[in-house]
Amino acid sequence: MQELVGPGEPLLLYHAGKAWLIRVRPGGELHTHLGVVRHEELLGRRYGEAVRTSKGRELYLIRPTIRDLALKFRRVTQVLYPKEWGFIASYLGIAAGSRILEVGTGSGVFSAYLAHLVKPTGRVISYERRKEFYEVALRNLQEVGLLEYVDLRNEDPGRGLGETGLDGAVVDVGDPWLLLDVLPPALKPTAPLAFCVPTFNQVERLVMELRRKGYLTIEAHELLDRRLEVKEGATRPASRMVGHTTFVVFCRSPAPSPNRAA
Amino acid sequence: MQELVGPGEPLLLYHAGKAWLIRVRPGGELHTHLGVVRHEELLGRRYGEAVRTSKGRELYLIRPTIRDLALKFRRVTQVLYPKEWGFIASYLGIAAGSRILEVGTGSGVFSAYLAHLVKPTGRVISYERRKEFYEVALRNLQEVGLLEYVDLRNEDPGRGLGETGLDGAVVDVGDPWLLLDVLPPALKPTAPLAFCVPTFNQVERLVMELRRKGYLTIEAHELLDRRLEVKEGATRPASRMVGHTTFVVFCRSPAPSPNRAA
Amino acid sequence: MQELVGPGEPLLLYHAGKAWLIRVRPGGELHTHLGVVRHEELLGRRYGEAVRTSKGRELYLIRPTIRDLALKFRRVTQVLYPKEWGFIASYLGIAAGSRILEVGTGSGVFSAYLAHLVKPTGRVISYERRKEFYEVALRNLQEVGLLEYVDLRNEDPGRGLGETGLDGAVVDVGDPWLLLDVLPPALKPTAPLAFCVPTFNQVERLVMELRRKGYLTIEAHELLDRRLEVKEGATRPASRMVGHTTFVVFCRSPAPSPNRAA
Amino acid sequence: MQELVGPGEPLLLYHAGKAWLIRVRPGGELHTHLGVVRHEELLGRRYGEAVRTSKGRELYLIRPTIRDLALKFRRVTQVLYPKEWGFIASYLGIAAGSRILEVGTGSGVFSAYLAHLVKPTGRVISYERRKEFYEVALRNLQEVGLLEYVDLRNEDPGRGLGETGLDGAVVDVGDPWLLLDVLPPALKPTAPLAFCVPTFNQVERLVMELRRKGYLTIEAHELLDRRLEVKEGATRPASRMVGHTTFVVFCRSPAPSPNRAA
Repeated sequence: MQELVGPGEPLLLYHAGKAWLIRVRPGGELHTHLGVVRHEELLGRRYGEAVRTSKGRELYLIRPTIRDLALKFRRVTQVLYPKEWGFIASYLGIAAGSRILEVGTGSGVFSAYLAHLVKPTGRVISYERRKEFYEVALRNLQEVGLLEYVDLRNEDPGRGLGETGLDGAVVDVGDPWLLLDVLPPALKPTAPLAFCVPTFNQVERLVMELRRKGYLTIEAHELLDRRLEVKEGATRPASRMVGHTTFVVFCRSPAPSPNRAA
Repeated sequence: MQELVGPGEPLLLYHAGKAWLIRVRPGGELHTHLGVVRHEELLGRRYGEAVRTSKGRELYLIRPTIRDLALKFRRVTQVLYPKEWGFIASYLGIAAGSRILEVGTGSGVFSAYLAHLVKPTGRVISYERRKEFYEVALRNLQEVGLLEYVDLRNEDPGRGLGETGLDGAVVDVGDPWLLLDVLPPALKPTAPLAFCVPTFNQVERLVMELRRKGYLTIEAHELLDRRLEVKEGATRPASRMVGHTTFVVFCRSPAPSPNRAA
Repeated sequence: MQELVGPGEPLLLYHAGKAWLIRVRPGGELHTHLGVVRHEELLGRRYGEAVRTSKGRELYLIRPTIRDLALKFRRVTQVLYPKEWGFIASYLGIAAGSRILEVGTGSGVFSAYLAHLVKPTGRVISYERRKEFYEVALRNLQEVGLLEYVDLRNEDPGRGLGETGLDGAVVDVGDPWLLLDVLPPALKPTAPLAFCVPTFNQVERLVMELRRKGYLTIEAHELLDRRLEVKEGATRPASRMVGHTTFVVFCRSPAPSPNRAA
Repeated sequence: MQELVGPGEPLLLYHAGKAWLIRVRPGGELHTHLGVVRHEELLGRRYGEAVRTSKGRELYLIRPTIRDLALKFRRVTQVLYPKEWGFIASYLGIAAGSRILEVGTGSGVFSAYLAHLVKPTGRVISYERRKEFYEVALRNLQEVGLLEYVDLRNEDPGRGLGETGLDGAVVDVGDPWLLLDVLPPALKPTAPLAFCVPTFNQVERLVMELRRKGYLTIEAHELLDRRLEVKEGATRPASRMVGHTTFVVFCRSPAPSPNRAA
């Protein structure tokens, strides 16, 4: 990875809390309320430098992380916030080589983060029932070069997954309890799972079903993220915050034998 | 990875919200308030099965994740909770091959998670000034087989790091502002950093210094994790929760040239 | 109200975050882990002064507020925390002269606060079905001299309240939806109500029923109270906090005519 | 208090989470995005009834509480939210007959609530240094008929208060530590105080000074209020919430003698 901005590369332009993601191309222009920047001016510059817009405002050139890229994906669905990404990834222990099941690809935002973690030797097997979401996710993943680590399926996982020995699963669909019989055969025994459900009713129904099916170490969590506004001598919590995105239910897959109880 | 419990393997024994981590060895015994289990009884069993203790209570055999292992480390310091692990890892985009700086190894709990993410091709360079912490971390990392991915240094990073081109940094020391000149030369330009500081005073001082030194995209966050207690028809938030662990300040490293301002 | 501690008076003795409530009487003794204090030593002292225990520790003499008194009541039930007391009282606009209905007296803790607010010209009408709670509340209210403002009834309010024109209602029972027909005839039209329910299931069922019965301006809230630990140069949120006590549902009583919809 | 809407009375018109406060007067008209309502149509109607706007939408007639009135005051300053009103009032034990000091009247929003609590026999002594705020508060309090219970002073309280034996104090100014010598002589010994300060820096400085001056039982709190969105089978916390309004520091006034230490 070099230190100079090159053609075709994704680039983040940053000014005072706002950021624009572009892919540098000949003849390209970025139009913002702070003025215009021609892509040509960016080529060959060093990351961390600032360029001036047509209005004389400074934009800093930043090499985007996977988080920056995924957060700028075209979106057709509500998406998890990065606070849940990491929460789930650390619970599941996802790393290079992991083979992870995702049910509910949505726009592919979290799929991209999962692919980033499991590459180059692992794999994300991701199901999305709705054709339009599937296609958006496909394009999004392709654009950031992560599609080769994702096995994206426009299928209903309810009929069986045709996989075995997967290391973990992330389920982000409205009716996850319908999948509780097809998940264990696809997973290693006691593999960790995370379910994202936004309502209490879903949490309750899901947890009751998980207990009934012998899933283990069941926990339901919610994460709140609050920012601080820092001023010298006047630092305080931010006055606006996101109140809720989703609950996350974690558990372990039961052994594949049929007779058990939590 | 096989499905049967083998000798020398770490194993989690679980019952109703409580878990014990052991390493299965001949002649070993686990003593709990639920009774005794002899390690011999565990060998050759399948993950997900339950064994009975001497008092007839069931313990489920679970294959530990990196999170389970690290949370049972011998600890000589306050440690980050897993909610911050993932939050930081996803912000920094840490994955296989990443070369990550850690300042403030502590007991090595977060180092273990970082090593798990960057292996096999990446590396964690971790500094710990205090000899006793350094040694505890060394043993902890060795025990879980992750020491080979960590370059553990019992040195003061303030004198310079002797590294270049690192992909990101996690700083968990009491006076992180002392490091703001030595960090950028060790990092790629605009590499992401995370600083863990528990008090407001530290957040304010750190953020003021980061601005002064030209660090970019500075944000201060705090995460709250609350559990739900699920009962059929009577689901509610848990009545006890952790109120605070740490604030996390994220930013990007400035370009290495000397003259800039955020 | 005089400035000197007199016989028979409630008195708070305070040391470093801990407080003991006594009623000063001849021959009385307070035994604490900080030593013993004889009540005689307290008589005639000024509020704000400190006395020394037998072990030489200082206890400050503080005139208790209604909050101090009520929080030291003998308790047979879970009680609302003062954060909810004030939240409800301000929503309902309770003040001197208010005639307020309480359903679910419990130990009388909140009844005492309500009585304190409505006295001398108002009245709290409070229902408690369980004899044992009723009797504890009776004694608690008597002890603090507030019983004369409370009409305490060991009855089931479900059969009708025999009141009209009340200014507001606070309902703290497990099945509040059973009361939705008997409440409006007892209240002024559009009088404010507060319902305390700890689970989501109760909130949902209650709110659905309130809508169906034509109650107005329905809102469900939850309050979180976190303390700061203040040290010079090291101020931070407290690491332990109460995660949940109750949800509070606020609304206005519908007009007494039968045909309406929210 | 009668059940029919009369001339000159404040009236709340409510529709689906939105509310308009009017004072009914001949010839008056309310213009909203839901259509127009002529005040004449409202006279003589019963509270709880609905009227139709010119666009055929229903508005419910609700008798406003003190909270409704105060929240619609003309505002020239940031104001406390009602969650803090009740929190403070219950800590201070404010009720009919209380003589309460307020420093920092602002728009008079909280003064109105205090006056509502102490009337008819108590009194609020309220200081506001800035002429323009003082005048707005004066008008606001007059309009709701509470000015007679408030002694509103356009003065700097720092020069001394000229009061003794007050039951409690609420201080909502930027530099409350400047008042710590003038407050105790005006208050009963061990009277409760509440200080509203939005930043950590203020909390720290204030608490340090309170300790130095011998104030007792010092606690710093922050309240968070989150709403639930209730739908049958899909109930969840609201996705937007207020992240911060103010911290509240509670304590007790020291005895008036000069030599003490917390």
